[in-house]
Order: sequence, then C-alpha cells, then structure tokens
Amino acid sequence: MQIAIVLFDRFTALDAIGPYETLGRLPDSEVVFVAEETGPVRTDNGRLALVADMRLTEAPHPDIVVVPGGPGQTPQMTNEALLEWIRTADATSTWTTSVCTGSLLLAAAGLLEGRRATSHWLALDELRKFGVEPTGERVVVDGKYVTAAGVSSGIDMGLDLIGRTAGDFVAQAVQLGIEYDPQPPYDAGAPQKAPADVVELLRSRSRFILGQEPTT
Amino acid sequence: MQIAIVLFDRFTALDAIGPYETLGRLPDSEVVFVAEETGPVRTDNGRLALVADMRLTEAPHPDIVVVPGGPGQTPQMTNEALLEWIRTADATSTWTTSVCTGSLLLAAAGLLEGRRATSHWLALDELRKFGVEPTGERVVVDGKYVTAAGVSSGIDMGLDLIGRTAGDFVAQAVQLGIEYDPQPPYDAGAPQKAPADVVELLRSRSRFILGQEPTT
Repeated sequence: MQIAIVLFDRFTALDAIGPYETLGRLPDSEVVFVAEETGPVRTDNGRLALVADMRLTEAPHPDIVVVPGGPGQTPQMTNEALLEWIRTADATSTWTTSVCTGSLLLAAAGLLEGRRATSHWLALDELRKFGVEPTGERVVVDGKYVTAAGVSSGIDMGLDLIGRTAGDFVAQAVQLGIEYDPQPPYDAGAPQKAPADVVELLRSRSRFILGQEPTT
Repeated sequence: MQIAIVLFDRFTALDAIGPYETLGRLPDSEVVFVAEETGPVRTDNGRLALVADMRLTEAPHPDIVVVPGGPGQTPQMTNEALLEWIRTADATSTWTTSVCTGSLLLAAAGLLEGRRATSHWLALDELRKFGVEPTGERVVVDGKYVTAAGVSSGIDMGLDLIGRTAGDFVAQAVQLGIEYDPQPPYDAGAPQKAPADVVELLRSRSRFILGQEPTT
C-alpha cells in the first residue's frame, strides 16, 4: 500500500506529519512525500523544509492520498499541476484525504462537490463556494473522501483510517506507540471552547489562514 | 528568542514537529533546526527527511533547546558532538526540553541527575540508569528542564511552555490556531488505558523503541 503525502510551498508541517506518523506505521505500507519537484519544500513560516523524495509524476497511483493545508493555500488552489495530480491520484485511490485547508484543494480539484467535508474552522465557509457542505466535525468520512479539521487533527484522522484499513488492534497499537494520550493544558482547541477574545483575535487574523501570511 | 530543535539520524518526526508547530508560533521567536551538518536528516523509518538549516556550532546559545527522540537513540547516547552541544546550549538556555526518548539524551549528557523526568513509556526504566526519577506524567517540569512523554506529547509540552513564557492567552490562541481539540477514535494512548494484548505487543517489541529498529 502506497501512501502519498503531497508537499507544496508554504504547507503547514503538522498537517503532513500527523498522517505520516500514524499512517506511516500501517503494516505493509510505504509512505512517500511527493511534490512538483524533488528536494526541500518550505513550510508556512519558512523556518523548516521537508524533503520531497518523488516528483508528482513518479507517484500517479497511491492507495492513500494525503493533502495537507497551509496559509498560502490561495495560490495553490489555482496550481493546475497540483490539482491535476490530485485528480489523477484520486481516480485510482482507495482513500483521498486532507488535513486543514487541504480540503480546499480537494474542493478546487472538483472532488468534493455535493459532499460533506471539514477544514480548519476559519476556512469552513470557503468550502461552500465549491458546493461542499461544511461540518464542524473533527474527521469527516464521506465515501472514500476523508477530511480532517485544522492542523493537529491529522493525527485523529490517521488513527481513524488505520482502524478502517487494518482494524482496531493495529490502530490502538499505533496510538500507544506514539503515546497519543492528549492532555492539553488548556481547553481552547475549538471555537466553541476557547475564550471569546481568543476566538476574536484569530477571526480578525483569518486572512492569515487563507491569505498570504502565517497564522498566529 | 531562539528555539533550537536538534536533528540526528533516525529521529522521530512528530517528536520534533509537535514543539515546532506550537513553540514556533511564539511571538518574537525564531525556530531553527540544527544538526551536526546542514542538509537533510532522515527520520526513524527512512521515509522522510527534514532539513537542518544550521550546524550545531552555529547555534550555541538558544533560549529554548528541544531534543526529540528516536528508536535509534542508543548510538546517539554516545555521540559526543551531540551531547557536547546539548551541554553547551544548556549552560545558557532558559528552558532545556525533550520529547520521547530525547530525555535519554539529556540524561546521557548528565543534565537530569537527581531530577524528575519522563520519556516514552517503554523507556522510563532507562532513565533510572542515569540517576533520574522517572514519572508517568505526560509533561514534567523540574527547574528549567521540561521533558515530555512519547512522540505526540510534544504538542502538550509546547502549549505548556508557551503558557509559562507568554501567558495563557497566547497559549490558547496557538491551541485554537492549530485546532488542538483532540478526539482520538480509541482510548489506547497510555499503557494504563490500552487493551492488555496491545500493551503486550509493544512491550515485546520494546527493543524497537530503544534499539535498532523502527517502532510499530
């Protein structure tokens, strides 16, 4: 089973690493990072690069497609080379997945029309522009399309998909292996839970999510 | 404020990315990935490389030191170039931190003797060999030393440290920004919670954590 995680300029690192650190532990699987060109691809804040080991054209038929998000998503939403790879890969994939604003790329590729999907909470309304029904759930499964909410949710999505693919035992073993027993020191991870002034700050900076600048 | 995350052969990606995706959002901070040599450094399963942008010698005095873990930790525990950088950086750091078996490197560098610390649950006993008191807590703060449990716990640690450094408001904004509202599909993230046969499987493979092979 090949799992292809696609990288592009200004992606968000944890969007990609959550699925990698979970799905990459699936037995008899091979995870590969792909991009338009091989070599380093910089993250949203420019402070880190992950290396793409294959060009998009070298991995046309992964079993699981993973599309991360990033605050610089707007230019990627008209990147035809990327969108065309997503469409081609989706044509034969078992699962087509996204984390955070990666769902906007799936939508821009025309894959989510009429479906339920999620995204970063600040980007949910953007999905409607593509005829997608946004939900506030953390992981949304609609047919073979699995979309996850913001940044950190790719870990939950990865465990969910392992369960569906390899069963509960393997998924629990991976969860225990990465010691995913979350104990955040605050309960502010969703807009319904965070203090109002924190939510307001991020809303006022929402262009940082969808626009040109890194988020907070 | 400089945050230096050190990479070495066969580190675990999420160990490094959890702190990066949280601490890297601290206002007025700069996060940098360092290694013995600049360039790509491969993770534990060999399927991904992160790029180190600075040599260890170029970042001798970070304010926050972050040491990830990895299943190939045993060779690193006698890597004097790495241990010496950890000692030097620690001499002037505000916080010296680790995720997963990164605490074994802090211990091997002689920094944790007589202190309380944590590690990946399968590696807790190893800490005793260095005169460290292991605890089962997810994040342990003892003086300026902050150690986190396995792999995914670096996210919790990062938020905890942001709270201590920049206050609750900023920490909550970062938590909401990365939508860290964990909803794992199973409750198997700690040995006390996982089914006994899952725990037993991982225990039987514990050499994969501390030895030469990738973990499950």
